[in-house]
Amino acid sequence: MINTRGIADEINDEIISLRRDFHKYPELAFTEFRTASLIARKLNDIGCEIKIGREIMDAKSRMALPSKEILEKEFKRAIAQGGDTEFLNKVKGGFPAVAAVISNGKGPVIALRVDMDALPIQENSSSRHFPFGKGFASVNTGVMHACGHDAHAVTGLGVAEILMKFKDKMRGTVKIIFQPAEEIICGAYPIVKSGFLDDVDRIMAIHYYSPWDPGLVSCTRGQNGHLAISRFDARFKGRQSHAGSKPEDGKNALMSAANAVLNLNAIPRNSNGATRISVGKLNAGTSRNVTCDEAVMEIETRGATTELNEYMNENALRILKASAELWDCKLEVKPMGSAPGGSSDDDFADEIMTYAKKAKTLTASENQRNCGSEDFICMLEHVRKCGGKGAVISIGSGPGGPHHSSEFDMNEAVIKDSIVFLSGFIFECLQK
Amino acid sequence: MINTRGIADEINDEIISLRRDFHKYPELAFTEFRTASLIARKLNDIGCEIKIGREIMDAKSRMALPSKEILEKEFKRAIAQGGDTEFLNKVKGGFPAVAAVISNGKGPVIALRVDMDALPIQENSSSRHFPFGKGFASVNTGVMHACGHDAHAVTGLGVAEILMKFKDKMRGTVKIIFQPAEEIICGAYPIVKSGFLDDVDRIMAIHYYSPWDPGLVSCTRGQNGHLAISRFDARFKGRQSHAGSKPEDGKNALMSAANAVLNLNAIPRNSNGATRISVGKLNAGTSRNVTCDEAVMEIETRGATTELNEYMNENALRILKASAELWDCKLEVKPMGSAPGGSSDDDFADEIMTYAKKAKTLTASENQRNCGSEDFICMLEHVRKCGGKGAVISIGSGPGGPHHSSEFDMNEAVIKDSIVFLSGFIFECLQK
Amino acid sequence: MINTRGIADEINDEIISLRRDFHKYPELAFTEFRTASLIARKLNDIGCEIKIGREIMDAKSRMALPSKEILEKEFKRAIAQGGDTEFLNKVKGGFPAVAAVISNGKGPVIALRVDMDALPIQENSSSRHFPFGKGFASVNTGVMHACGHDAHAVTGLGVAEILMKFKDKMRGTVKIIFQPAEEIICGAYPIVKSGFLDDVDRIMAIHYYSPWDPGLVSCTRGQNGHLAISRFDARFKGRQSHAGSKPEDGKNALMSAANAVLNLNAIPRNSNGATRISVGKLNAGTSRNVTCDEAVMEIETRGATTELNEYMNENALRILKASAELWDCKLEVKPMGSAPGGSSDDDFADEIMTYAKKAKTLTASENQRNCGSEDFICMLEHVRKCGGKGAVISIGSGPGGPHHSSEFDMNEAVIKDSIVFLSGFIFECLQK
Amino acid sequence: MINTRGIADEINDEIISLRRDFHKYPELAFTEFRTASLIARKLNDIGCEIKIGREIMDAKSRMALPSKEILEKEFKRAIAQGGDTEFLNKVKGGFPAVAAVISNGKGPVIALRVDMDALPIQENSSSRHFPFGKGFASVNTGVMHACGHDAHAVTGLGVAEILMKFKDKMRGTVKIIFQPAEEIICGAYPIVKSGFLDDVDRIMAIHYYSPWDPGLVSCTRGQNGHLAISRFDARFKGRQSHAGSKPEDGKNALMSAANAVLNLNAIPRNSNGATRISVGKLNAGTSRNVTCDEAVMEIETRGATTELNEYMNENALRILKASAELWDCKLEVKPMGSAPGGSSDDDFADEIMTYAKKAKTLTASENQRNCGSEDFICMLEHVRKCGGKGAVISIGSGPGGPHHSSEFDMNEAVIKDSIVFLSGFIFECLQK
Repeated sequence: MINTRGIADEINDEIISLRRDFHKYPELAFTEFRTASLIARKLNDIGCEIKIGREIMDAKSRMALPSKEILEKEFKRAIAQGGDTEFLNKVKGGFPAVAAVISNGKGPVIALRVDMDALPIQENSSSRHFPFGKGFASVNTGVMHACGHDAHAVTGLGVAEILMKFKDKMRGTVKIIFQPAEEIICGAYPIVKSGFLDDVDRIMAIHYYSPWDPGLVSCTRGQNGHLAISRFDARFKGRQSHAGSKPEDGKNALMSAANAVLNLNAIPRNSNGATRISVGKLNAGTSRNVTCDEAVMEIETRGATTELNEYMNENALRILKASAELWDCKLEVKPMGSAPGGSSDDDFADEIMTYAKKAKTLTASENQRNCGSEDFICMLEHVRKCGGKGAVISIGSGPGGPHHSSEFDMNEAVIKDSIVFLSGFIFECLQK
Repeated sequence: MINTRGIADEINDEIISLRRDFHKYPELAFTEFRTASLIARKLNDIGCEIKIGREIMDAKSRMALPSKEILEKEFKRAIAQGGDTEFLNKVKGGFPAVAAVISNGKGPVIALRVDMDALPIQENSSSRHFPFGKGFASVNTGVMHACGHDAHAVTGLGVAEILMKFKDKMRGTVKIIFQPAEEIICGAYPIVKSGFLDDVDRIMAIHYYSPWDPGLVSCTRGQNGHLAISRFDARFKGRQSHAGSKPEDGKNALMSAANAVLNLNAIPRNSNGATRISVGKLNAGTSRNVTCDEAVMEIETRGATTELNEYMNENALRILKASAELWDCKLEVKPMGSAPGGSSDDDFADEIMTYAKKAKTLTASENQRNCGSEDFICMLEHVRKCGGKGAVISIGSGPGGPHHSSEFDMNEAVIKDSIVFLSGFIFECLQK
Repeated sequence: MINTRGIADEINDEIISLRRDFHKYPELAFTEFRTASLIARKLNDIGCEIKIGREIMDAKSRMALPSKEILEKEFKRAIAQGGDTEFLNKVKGGFPAVAAVISNGKGPVIALRVDMDALPIQENSSSRHFPFGKGFASVNTGVMHACGHDAHAVTGLGVAEILMKFKDKMRGTVKIIFQPAEEIICGAYPIVKSGFLDDVDRIMAIHYYSPWDPGLVSCTRGQNGHLAISRFDARFKGRQSHAGSKPEDGKNALMSAANAVLNLNAIPRNSNGATRISVGKLNAGTSRNVTCDEAVMEIETRGATTELNEYMNENALRILKASAELWDCKLEVKPMGSAPGGSSDDDFADEIMTYAKKAKTLTASENQRNCGSEDFICMLEHVRKCGGKGAVISIGSGPGGPHHSSEFDMNEAVIKDSIVFLSGFIFECLQK
Repeated sequence: MINTRGIADEINDEIISLRRDFHKYPELAFTEFRTASLIARKLNDIGCEIKIGREIMDAKSRMALPSKEILEKEFKRAIAQGGDTEFLNKVKGGFPAVAAVISNGKGPVIALRVDMDALPIQENSSSRHFPFGKGFASVNTGVMHACGHDAHAVTGLGVAEILMKFKDKMRGTVKIIFQPAEEIICGAYPIVKSGFLDDVDRIMAIHYYSPWDPGLVSCTRGQNGHLAISRFDARFKGRQSHAGSKPEDGKNALMSAANAVLNLNAIPRNSNGATRISVGKLNAGTSRNVTCDEAVMEIETRGATTELNEYMNENALRILKASAELWDCKLEVKPMGSAPGGSSDDDFADEIMTYAKKAKTLTASENQRNCGSEDFICMLEHVRKCGGKGAVISIGSGPGGPHHSSEFDMNEAVIKDSIVFLSGFIFECLQK
C-alpha cells in the first residue's frame, strides 16, 4: 500500500470544484463535448497519454445518435460554455470519449470505466436542493446530472492524477475510460468495437449510490446483477386514404401499431426469471379523417439474464412483423441500444473486497444494489471473451434524493475516499 | 299458349299431399335422401328421363359435407321414413340431387332449378301453426322446412308432369333440377362442375315469398340482387404447455384467434357498397391451465357484389395468416361454401314479365325482394359463361310467418298457379 | 324579374379582384379576421346594415377554437396583411362572422349563407396553376382556398350590392351570412345559437363545384344529401410508473387507447346505410421505459343519416369508456364539431329550379353532387325547427383541380352569373 | 418414541392391497364416493370415531361441484364398484369427506390431512407400467390416480390404525382428515367452513414425490412454498342478431371475450414476484352467421404469494367487467376454487425435522419441492387464524413417472415408513 491520501487531500478542492462545474453544465448522451474536452485538457496537463474521439470509438457502432442538427447545436453550446477548443475538435460529430493511459513497461492491464452523461430531467430549483443553494445547479434547461456521473468523471481524474505520481513504481498499464452515453446504454459498444479494451486483464466500473450510507463499498454479485436490456423503435408504414370517401384504400398503420401494443404486453411470463416489456411511446397519424400511414413506437425489453431478454426480443420481433402483416403495412425496426445482463466475476470481486477490508478507506459491505441495467456489462463481457475479468463497484454516497429524480444529490465527501481507495487498489495490482 | 290449367287442377291434390309429406320429413343439406328418392320415383312414374346422384354431382366439389357417420345415420333414417330404396342407393353417400330431362329433338335448352333442403330449426307446435294444426309438422327434431323448399320441390314435379304431356309439341330440352344443400350454398357448385348445365340456354330459379301477397311475381333486378357470400372455417394450431410452470413454452392458439376476431371485425367499410363479416362461433382449448393449442372459428363474409365479397375475403385471409404468425401458430382455412352475387339478366327477366302480363296466371309486379344470398347464382354465372341467360323468380305466397322462423308458413294455393305459369312459359319458349 | 345583369357587369371587376385578394390571403377556421373585416368594410360602404362578431356568434357554442396564442398571432397577421382595423376589433378573439341585413318593412325573411375559411393545404406553385400564374396564389404558408370559399364570399357581396339597389321594390328582409369555420363544421352552430336565424323563412347555401360544367345548377336532394358527421378527441389518463422496476404501479393509457382503436374500427356495419369511423391520429406517452400515462386520439364518425351517425357515436362513446376502464384510466371526450345529415326541402328546391329554368342565367340540372358533410345543415335544421325551409345549391364551376387538393381551381366566370341568379331569385321571393 | 414398526409390518399387506384397490377405482373430485365409504368402513372396523359427509363439509361452500346428473351417475358407479352402502348414503350428493377422531381427554389437537381424488387422465396401458403389469391399473376410463392420492389415503388409514392402539398413552386428540377434491382446490374450503378445524393446534399434510429418492423427507419452506391460485369461469352474455341482415342489432359476446383474452394476458408483470394467468378454454357462439350471444372462458391465476395472486385477480376482474361493457354485454364470473399461497410454519417444520433426524425412519433432507399450488394451504391459514400452526411434508417416493402424467408411478415401500414416521411423530406430540 502506498500513501495516496496526501495527494488526494491536495487535489480535493480542485476535484470538487470540477465536479460542480460538470454538474452546472450537464450534457446528454453523445453530446458530452464540453465535459470530454475539459477532461482531456486536465489529463494532458497532468501528463497522461490521451486517447480520444475516433481513436477509441467505432463510428458505425454508435446507435441512437442524435441528428446532425442536434450534434451541431450542442457542439456550439459546448464552445459557448467554455469547452476546450483544442480537444473539442477531436470529439466533434458525436465522439465524446476520452481515455487516460498510464503505462510503465510490460505487465497487466487494469481498466477503470467512469461515465460522463447527464439525464433529460429539469433540476430542482428550491434553495434546499444543495446544488441550487450552492449555485451550481444545471444551467442547461431540462438536463441534469441526476445520477452522479459528474462525480464518476472527476473520480476518474483523481485516480489518474495520483497514479501518474506513482507510475514508476508500477509495472503494466492503467486505462481510465471516460465514456459517453451510458444512460442510453449506447456508449460502451463503440468503445468495445474500437479494440481499445482487447488487451485489458481486469476492468472495473464504479457507481455512487445515495440510498446507502457514505463510504459503504460492495460489488454486484450473482443473481442480484444487472438486467439485460434492449431498446428499439418500430415504425409501421401503411397508406393514406380519405377515411370517409375511400376507407377501403387505406393501409392502417395505427391498426398495426395498436395490435402490436396489445400483443407485446401479452408475451407470456417466463418461468426462468423476471422479464419486462414496455411500449412507452406511440405517435401515429396526421389527421383525423385520413387513414394513418405511419406509426412509430418506442420499445424496451429487459430480462434477468441475457437469455431471458433474448426471449422477449424474439417474441417482440415476431409480434411486430405479424402486426405489420395484419394490415398490409411495412415494418422498420431500429435498434436503440442494448446491454447484456451480468455481474462481477466472483474472484475479482473477492480481491476488491479483501483490499477494502485491509485498506479501510471505504467500509466493505455485502449490500446489494437493485441494479437496473448497466452499459458497462457490454465492456465486461468483451473483456471476459478476451480472457479477462471485471467487477461493478457500488459506493454509498448518501444522503441524497433518489437517482433519476430532480432532487438527486450526493455526499461529495465520498469522492476523495473513493479516489484514495481506487488508486490504492490499482496500484497494489500493478506494484513492482 | 297451351291450356295447362286442366292438368294442374287434376294433379293438385297429389301435389299438395306430397308437399305436406316433404314438410313432415324435412332433411338437412346433403341428407335429402328420402326427398330425392321420392322425387326420382315420381319422375320415373310419369316417364321422365332421370339424372341422379353422381351423374349430376361432382364428388370432389362438395364442400361442408357432413361426416360419414352423419351421412350413414341420416341414410338409415331416410329408409325408415319411407324413402324409395331403388333410388336411395343412387344418392347414397351425400349425392341427393335429381333432375328430370324432357327432350324432343334439337332446340333450346331451358332449365328450372328448385331446391329441397330444410333448416336446423325446431318447428312451432302451437295449434295455430297451420302445418301443426293439419298434422304435417316436422317429425324430425330440430329440422324444419322453414323456407318453402318443400313447395319448390313439388312445383318442379308439377311442371315436369305437365310438360311431359306436351313434349311432342315442343322442340328442344327442359331440365328440371332438384338441388340439395341450397341453404348452406354448397349444392349448386357440384352440379355445375358435373357439366350438367353446360348446354343450358336459359335457366330459372323460383322462390316463394310469404311477405308478399299471393300470386305476385317478380324477377330480382340490378342492385337489388343477391349478395355474394363466402363461408370458411379457420383453425389455428399452436402448442400446449403447462400455463403455470412453463408459460414460455406454449404457442397460444387462442391468442391468435382472439386477435383474428377483433381484426376481422375491423376490416374497413367499403365505399363501393355493403359488406359484412361474422365470426359466429369459436371453440378453443381444452383445459383451464394448459396453453390453448387449437382454436377453430366459423366465418362468413358477404358483399353487395362479388367484388365486394372478394374484398372482404382478401382482407380476412391476410388477417387470419398474420394472426397465426403473431403467436407462431399454424393456420388451416377450409372453405365451407360460397355464392357469387348477382341478379337476373334484364332481357330474360323482361321476357318472363311480358309473359306474366299476357298469361295473367300470376300478377306481374315490380316488387323487389330483400334477397340475401342464393346458391343459384353459382349456376347462373356458369350458364352465362357458356353463353346463356337466367333469372330468379320470386312468387308471393303470403300470408305466413317469416322465412327462417319456426312460425314460417305459406299459402299453398300459389303452388298450382305457379306450376301453370312456369310450365306455360317454358312451353312458349320451346313451342314448335 | 328585374334586370340585375347590368349592375353585375359593372361590379364584376371589383368582385373578381376581391376574390383574388381573398385567395392570396387565405385564413383558417376562426381566424378569418382579415376576410371578415374587409367584407364588413365593403358592406358598410354600400350602405348595408351590418351584424358582426359576438352579435351573431354565441361565444360558448364555439368548438375546436384555436388556442389564445394562435388567435393572437393570426390577429396580428391579419392587421399586417391589411385587415380593416375598425372591423377587426369587432371580430377579435375568435368571432369572425359578418352578416348583411337588407330590410324593407314586414315580409318574409330570406337568408343566404356563404362561407369564408380556407384549408391547411400548401398551394401549388407551378406556373400552370392559374392562381400562381396570375400572381394571386396564397402567401400564407400551408394555407389555401382549395374549396372556393373565397368565391362564395364575394358572391355574397355581389348579391348584397345588387339587392341594396332594389331594396325599395322588395318587402321583407334579406340576411346574407358570411360564416367562418365551415371546413371544421364548427361555424354554423354558434351563429344558430346567437338567435340570428330564428326569424328566417327560407335559407340557402351555395357551393361552387369544379367537376361540373360551368353554370350547371342543382339542389341536393333526398338520399344524395350530406352525411352526418361528428368529430371528437378522446384523452385517456393513466398513471406513470417505471416500466422496469414497478410495472405493477402503472395505469397504462396506451393500452386503453390501443383497445379503443381496435374496437372503434370494429363497430358493426349498419343495415340501414353507410357509416364510417376513423381514428386518424394517436399520440401517447413520453418515454420508452415509463408506463404511458396519457394518450390522445382524434376521431371522426359519419353516417348516411343523422341517426346512423348517432349509432356510431353511441357505440364509440361506450367503447371509449370501457377502454378506459379496462386499464383503470380516466377518460375525457371533447367534441370537436359536428353536422347533421340532410338535404334540401323538396318544394323549396323545386321553386329554385323552376326559377332557374325561367331565368336561364344558370342551366338547371338534375346532377347530384357527392356531398360529403356540410356545416350548413346545422343552420337548415334550425330554420326548419322554426318553421322555415332551406336548400343547398351547387353550381358548376369547372374546369379546375379537385376540391381539397393543392391544384384546386375554378372558372371565375360563373361568379357573375351566380350573383345575377341568386339576387334575381331572392328579389322574386320578396318583390312587392 | 414408541415402537410402531411392528404394527406397521403387520398391516402392510392390507395397506398395499387397499392402495391398489383405490388405484384401480379412481374417482374425480367430489365423486370419491366409493373411496370415502371404504375408508369409513375401515375406520369403523378399527374402532375409530368417524365424522363423515355433511358433518365436516359445509354444503354451500362447495365450488365447482359436478352437475346433479354426474353426481348421480357416479354414485351408481360407486355402488356397482363395491362401495360400502352404509357409508355411501352419508356421502351422497357430493359430500365424500371422512375423518377419524382419536381422542383421550383434554390436550392438544393434532390433525393430519390426506386426500383421495384422482385426475382426468387415461392411465398408461403398457406392461412396463407397474400398475398395469400388476393388474391394478384404472378401470375407470379417463380417470387415474396420477398424483399418489391413493397412497396418501391409505397412509392416513395406517396412521389411524397404529394410533388407535396407543390411544391410552396419549392425551389430547388426533384428527385424520380424508379430503376430496384437492386437485381442483375445492375440497379444503367446505371442511374449513364446517368448523371441524377450529380447535386444531397443529396440522400437517403429506405428499409423496416421485422425483426424489425414496424416504427423503422435507417440509416446504419460505419462498419455495405453494403458489396462491384462483380459478374462475367468465360468461359474457350478449344478444343475437342476423349478422348479415341486422348486424347493428347484435351485442357480440365473442368480441367481449376476445378483448378479455388479449388484455388478461397483458396484465403487467409484478416486481414483487412471479405471477401467472391462463385463459385455457373459450367456447363462444352457436352459428356462423348469427352474432354470438354467449361466450364462456375458463381462467386461472397464480401468484408467488396470496397478495400477488390477489393482484392478478383484481386486474382480471376489472378487465372482464370492462370487456363486457365494451360491447354492452352482461358478465357472470363464477369462482371455481382457490387456494392461498404459503408454506410451513418454520418452528413446527423444525420440530418435524428434528424428530426425523432422531427417528431415522425417513431421511431428513433440505430439498425443496417445486410445489405448484396446494388446497391444504386453505386449511393451514384457517388453523393459523385460530392460533395453531402447520406444515406441508413431502416424502420422496421415487422412482416413478412424472406426477400428473399417464406414466406416474411410485415406490410403494415408502408407505410403510411414512406411516411409522407420522404415527411416531404424532404420538410424541401427545404422549402423556
